Amino acid sequence: MAATIDLNSDMGESYGVYSLGHDEALLDYVSSANVACGFHAGDPRIMGQTVALAVEKGVSLGAHPGFPDLVGFGRREMHVNPDEVTTDMLYQLGALEALGRAAGLPLRHVKPHGALYNQIARDGRLARAVVEAVALYDRDLILVGLPGSEVEAAAAAAGVRYAREAFADRAYNADGTLASRRLTGALVTDPAEVARRAVRMVTQGRVTSLDGKEIELAPDTICIHGDTPGAVELARTVRATLEASGVAIRPMAEVVRARAW
Amino acid sequence: MAATIDLNSDMGESYGVYSLGHDEALLDYVSSANVACGFHAGDPRIMGQTVALAVEKGVSLGAHPGFPDLVGFGRREMHVNPDEVTTDMLYQLGALEALGRAAGLPLRHVKPHGALYNQIARDGRLARAVVEAVALYDRDLILVGLPGSEVEAAAAAAGVRYAREAFADRAYNADGTLASRRLTGALVTDPAEVARRAVRMVTQGRVTSLDGKEIELAPDTICIHGDTPGAVELARTVRATLEASGVAIRPMAEVVRARAW
Amino acid sequence: MAATIDLNSDMGESYGVYSLGHDEALLDYVSSANVACGFHAGDPRIMGQTVALAVEKGVSLGAHPGFPDLVGFGRREMHVNPDEVTTDMLYQLGALEALGRAAGLPLRHVKPHGALYNQIARDGRLARAVVEAVALYDRDLILVGLPGSEVEAAAAAAGVRYAREAFADRAYNADGTLASRRLTGALVTDPAEVARRAVRMVTQGRVTSLDGKEIELAPDTICIHGDTPGAVELARTVRATLEASGVAIRPMAEVVRARAW
Amino acid sequence: MAATIDLNSDMGESYGVYSLGHDEALLDYVSSANVACGFHAGDPRIMGQTVALAVEKGVSLGAHPGFPDLVGFGRREMHVNPDEVTTDMLYQLGALEALGRAAGLPLRHVKPHGALYNQIARDGRLARAVVEAVALYDRDLILVGLPGSEVEAAAAAAGVRYAREAFADRAYNADGTLASRRLTGALVTDPAEVARRAVRMVTQGRVTSLDGKEIELAPDTICIHGDTPGAVELARTVRATLEASGVAIRPMAEVVRARAW
Repeated sequence: MAATIDLNSDMGESYGVYSLGHDEALLDYVSSANVACGFHAGDPRIMGQTVALAVEKGVSLGAHPGFPDLVGFGRREMHVNPDEVTTDMLYQLGALEALGRAAGLPLRHVKPHGALYNQIARDGRLARAVVEAVALYDRDLILVGLPGSEVEAAAAAAGVRYAREAFADRAYNADGTLASRRLTGALVTDPAEVARRAVRMVTQGRVTSLDGKEIELAPDTICIHGDTPGAVELARTVRATLEASGVAIRPMAEVVRARAW
Repeated sequence: MAATIDLNSDMGESYGVYSLGHDEALLDYVSSANVACGFHAGDPRIMGQTVALAVEKGVSLGAHPGFPDLVGFGRREMHVNPDEVTTDMLYQLGALEALGRAAGLPLRHVKPHGALYNQIARDGRLARAVVEAVALYDRDLILVGLPGSEVEAAAAAAGVRYAREAFADRAYNADGTLASRRLTGALVTDPAEVARRAVRMVTQGRVTSLDGKEIELAPDTICIHGDTPGAVELARTVRATLEASGVAIRPMAEVVRARAW
Repeated sequence: MAATIDLNSDMGESYGVYSLGHDEALLDYVSSANVACGFHAGDPRIMGQTVALAVEKGVSLGAHPGFPDLVGFGRREMHVNPDEVTTDMLYQLGALEALGRAAGLPLRHVKPHGALYNQIARDGRLARAVVEAVALYDRDLILVGLPGSEVEAAAAAAGVRYAREAFADRAYNADGTLASRRLTGALVTDPAEVARRAVRMVTQGRVTSLDGKEIELAPDTICIHGDTPGAVELARTVRATLEASGVAIRPMAEVVRARAW
Repeated sequence: MAATIDLNSDMGESYGVYSLGHDEALLDYVSSANVACGFHAGDPRIMGQTVALAVEKGVSLGAHPGFPDLVGFGRREMHVNPDEVTTDMLYQLGALEALGRAAGLPLRHVKPHGALYNQIARDGRLARAVVEAVALYDRDLILVGLPGSEVEAAAAAAGVRYAREAFADRAYNADGTLASRRLTGALVTDPAEVARRAVRMVTQGRVTSLDGKEIELAPDTICIHGDTPGAVELARTVRATLEASGVAIRPMAEVVRARAW
């Protein structure tokens, strides 16, 4: 059977008059769009416009909920209570689902943003709060996060489908965690190199760590960053290289389903 | 056939540490709760708590969306575009529906708040924007508003169910509009008098205007204000008096359905 | 005596990760910077960075307060009370003054933004509320607005210094008001043409209206829009053309003082 | 020389239609008001009203800046950068000073709120960021905080005046830190007992810890909580008991100046 992978990208992170990212161009290359839900970025009108683009390009819709911290773009860790996380998640899931429903596009997945993404990778209480929101809202949703994290464990315990995310443009430590952005070589910027790493992740389930070790990882989805210079060219190269290597780009739900068999 | 009426009240208008209203007590007397959705008031945690109370008391759930103006409590008119209104409405409808779904309580109706309520009563463009959001989101939802308003006309044109709202504690002008709060006698505060007016509205379809004229009105729902001193006592008296007069208190959906026959 | 004029531009309208405008480049050409104060745009860090640029470029500092409507960028008219306007103004003036004081740059002028700018041009109550805030805060501040407006009258009545603003890139009606942006020819985009209009405004006190009439106006300051494509080139051309015509570019305070003599 | 102490209370923490605390009544008993600045609580109109009350009651004005987290009331710790803290502080100081200036009431002190108060007690980087804002804004301001904290050290290093705050209604650990609110006996609620503790703190410079040890502390100001039931009665009792014990209640500036001699 051919290898398959999902390509996901964060979208709809503009706000009011402020424009961010290259959503329309990136939607030609990704299979899953994670749309911001108004807390760390995005507003209802932007959400509607982003959903309309996803419909037009035939891309699968996901929510990209974050902390209520617009000025910090949801990147500042906050000491929140689990019930705040669960209700903030439900609120954002419902808000985006409504914009999707109005456009005939169903909500398929959820990828928490920024500091929330990082905190639930290591904090079991918050991870369970996120998983609880997903399970209460829609048991068919797929939750996206780091492999081997607290949130993957929480999803497994609750029977919530989970997509393991890899970053082809980020270096890994030998233990499979992401290398700090401050380390030399932590960010891979050459599109061809990112594409090679993506192909190897998908076809061999491997990546070489920053210090030269072979790490096993079996991603369901690869993140395409949309806010970097050259993001569109990188997305184009990654997709073309994967397809040239015989990898099929499929929406997250198909990849996760295939793995489950 | 016995006369029926719905009693609705705005709820969930607390925010963070700030407490407003008497939601728990009022839920013993009303049949429909309009829950604020985080724009003019309310936050996700408050929304979840309010929905839980509505479940416990067996009260029907509605959304109470407003303008994005927390400091002004959604009471300041804003010159917004129709597409902003439609997407703001969809966002808030979905957000509340998610909290309701998590608690097993379906969303049944929508009552816009404050300045938005007033603007759509007289501005056809904004009225159609609100109706469009309801129609796109869920054709079974009931939209609540003033009788004889632009929004009633827009709902009728779009085939959206509409509940005509009356205010037993507010004086009316001879043309059926609400008398300005600044006029003497505009606010009826005696619970027994409010209750008598409510009974007459429901059983005779009439109310006497501030200048002594008889006005016809056929309300589907009567608003019980929750933020006034004595709100709970007033709600108790209105309900008890209606029931003693043989009026059945029923959720909005049943009242509107009965009228449609 | 040589003709003098101030050139002003709105600045600091970025927010969090969102970048807007070309502040650094424009500061080479303008003499007065109107810095957003966190309500319609801007945040404390952005304000500090913008003030630092103004210090570096030797540009005079002004506040650019707006309505509390970030998602609408302060462009939506709001039905606010005068006391809300006065306290919102004081709050924003003080906030910017603090960032200026920390950098050793005194606050010199105030130019309300967007919908607030427009509403106080025609609404005397709100105009007086703005003037009251300026007078209470610092009687040496200069208030910037449309000539012949309610706010100019209110400033005169209160003895608050006022800078009459002209728009070299906008067409005028025969009565001296700005032509609606929707009319053909309402926006002048050719830098050379904008520069010629600026020179004529300053040296002859005249502009030709959209329908060909000669209008008298005696501006103290000309607005340089910063968020249009080509804003920097336009600013460069306007300044160079003015200087080549013998006009001295001076901070608003000097221009207004010279007029007062 | 008679013992002196300042009594301070957090004020102006209402927001829009939401009312919190008992500001007007408490102002009869405290000598310093810490007024919220719109980030964790308060809005410009509320700030103006609170300042007006402080003028009327002759109470000294201070700022009570917090994190930009209205829904969390500034109680959630946030991983912020020092430059964000410095500019957020400057912004809030200036905003309140403007409302004070309009009413003729000068700004005298600064007491950070909630999570910010706690984080700067133990995080030297953030403590220095707060002290830098105070020093840049006004070297005559007094900064209020915990004794023996990182922020006291930072203030001393920068030559910023500092008021050591004690809590007569909170139990202390043997090391002088506040006992966790979750411990039995951590909150002292009997007004007479709180008053006795306050008198002993001021006249003997001592308090007995939760586990029975004698701790030395020499407070400049005692915090009167305003949002607890019985806050007004407690404030009245504390003040009356202090005065009956010969302690003079004086604004913070006088107490700190006396200590410095």
